[in-house]
Amino acid sequence: MKPSIAQKRIEGVLAPVITPFRKDYSPDPDRFVRHCQWLMRSGCAGLAVFGTNSEANSMSVEEKLELLDALATGGVAAGALMPGTGHCALSDSVKMTREAVRMGCGGVLMLPPFYYKGVSDEGLFRNFSEVIERVGDERLRLYLYHIPPVSNVPIPLELIERLLERYPGTVAGVKDSSGDWSNTKAMLDRFKDRSFDIFAGSEVFLLDNMRSGGRGCITATGNVNPAAIDHVYRNWRGPEADRLQAGITATRKIVQKQPMISALKAITAHFGNDPQWKTVRPPLVELTSEQERQLISDLQGAGFSMPGLRG
Amino acid sequence: MKPSIAQKRIEGVLAPVITPFRKDYSPDPDRFVRHCQWLMRSGCAGLAVFGTNSEANSMSVEEKLELLDALATGGVAAGALMPGTGHCALSDSVKMTREAVRMGCGGVLMLPPFYYKGVSDEGLFRNFSEVIERVGDERLRLYLYHIPPVSNVPIPLELIERLLERYPGTVAGVKDSSGDWSNTKAMLDRFKDRSFDIFAGSEVFLLDNMRSGGRGCITATGNVNPAAIDHVYRNWRGPEADRLQAGITATRKIVQKQPMISALKAITAHFGNDPQWKTVRPPLVELTSEQERQLISDLQGAGFSMPGLRG
Repeated sequence: MKPSIAQKRIEGVLAPVITPFRKDYSPDPDRFVRHCQWLMRSGCAGLAVFGTNSEANSMSVEEKLELLDALATGGVAAGALMPGTGHCALSDSVKMTREAVRMGCGGVLMLPPFYYKGVSDEGLFRNFSEVIERVGDERLRLYLYHIPPVSNVPIPLELIERLLERYPGTVAGVKDSSGDWSNTKAMLDRFKDRSFDIFAGSEVFLLDNMRSGGRGCITATGNVNPAAIDHVYRNWRGPEADRLQAGITATRKIVQKQPMISALKAITAHFGNDPQWKTVRPPLVELTSEQERQLISDLQGAGFSMPGLRG
Repeated sequence: MKPSIAQKRIEGVLAPVITPFRKDYSPDPDRFVRHCQWLMRSGCAGLAVFGTNSEANSMSVEEKLELLDALATGGVAAGALMPGTGHCALSDSVKMTREAVRMGCGGVLMLPPFYYKGVSDEGLFRNFSEVIERVGDERLRLYLYHIPPVSNVPIPLELIERLLERYPGTVAGVKDSSGDWSNTKAMLDRFKDRSFDIFAGSEVFLLDNMRSGGRGCITATGNVNPAAIDHVYRNWRGPEADRLQAGITATRKIVQKQPMISALKAITAHFGNDPQWKTVRPPLVELTSEQERQLISDLQGAGFSMPGLRG
């Protein structure tokens, strides 16, 4: 084990950063770094690169490591990064996690292995445990990624309890993308005073999460609306909190009327005047022109903007 | 495009070969080659290495390529191989498929990208199409892998139709692991006389599949019961076919009372007198000793054996 470095944990609003692809579907490091820099300037406390909204699982480990390198070269602070490093293959998870820790990333956000369904808690425990033991570095801050609507493999509270018991300090928190507030609340109640940081998986639950002891949110729409979401985070104790929350919830509802990832890319393409952003890797597809027109029109009608996005 | 080499297509019984791991979970090429050789001696017409029962998605691309190399070095005929090459990441699928074709594999068995759920036929078409175009080799024989109970991403008949229309000769068939005979029958009816080879995903449907124009089966229990299953395949037109089918179905039912992959490994460990075979990678877990005792006892009671397995 390398010596622990007491680093302040990431709190606030994180974006699961969308990944720009060129026409040939290759990842575009320059656009990626620029978008990350804009997010950090615009209210994000951290960047959950390689999340679901990043099309992370549509990329190879090598492609993701190249993008991480580009961020380092591009001067994005590693301490603000919480890359997704969980794969179906234990060997891939170890490789990505080790590299993230070596770079000094503030944390890693880890999916369970998601090919086999109905697996046991024991099997999932062994997966996370093997990654932690093999990386063998006290700097590792592991955030569990609970997203059963997509992964189809949940991370039950009993499993979290067991991991937290065995690896306190290393198992640092969770992103709850179940979409089920009662599950987030159950985590908040059960793991309070355990140094276990709970992030809502959508800004719709940001205020509720903060009021119940959570640490922020890691949210798709953080890619396009970071300033307003951060404003709720910074003012959650204030008299305007409910009104501010209603505003970001309204924007979220507009965006999620369309397929989320393609919508985020269409918004970034439109407000950044950069159409290449629209490209998604198979098996995803871009919005139709009608979906795109509706989305942009709805957002403009609500006074939405992305200040400072155009170069 | 390299010139097409008229190679006889694989027909008959294929095993999705279980992958041996050492105590530290590293793949064991020597045990793997020995098991593949035993399967080819014992009735298998081909080897669907890197299938669901191979824990393929629990391994990195590099680990799988090393095992493929070991098969080539070990003298297993490449023409009999149908490796699984479908991944969530397009780049991984292209890399594995290209390597399989370069080695002269008889085919590849391709999962759809399985992280995102509810994706469109257009998105799945683009995925398979990109792989075919990028590999760009007329020797490619692509078998689609339909296994919605695990992948949670089905391959609908309309998508097969479109792929077959665009890539005749390359899109060569399907493994139907839906467990739903009516789906297999619908494929058989719709794609007859189209050079589209349909393999049942379980030997339970072998006789039905052969009688309806199918080409064999790719089945988990092919790992442990290849001779008897091959015997049904070779005698499907004969007067004893129904009785023979009942025999292999009975064996299957015994095995699938336990979690399949761990059961196959426990059987191989027991009848090959090689306990290291029991190791599975997380998130899977080995059978409990009680499950194992029950399984072996049931099989012995039914007169099951694995002739020639012990070195």
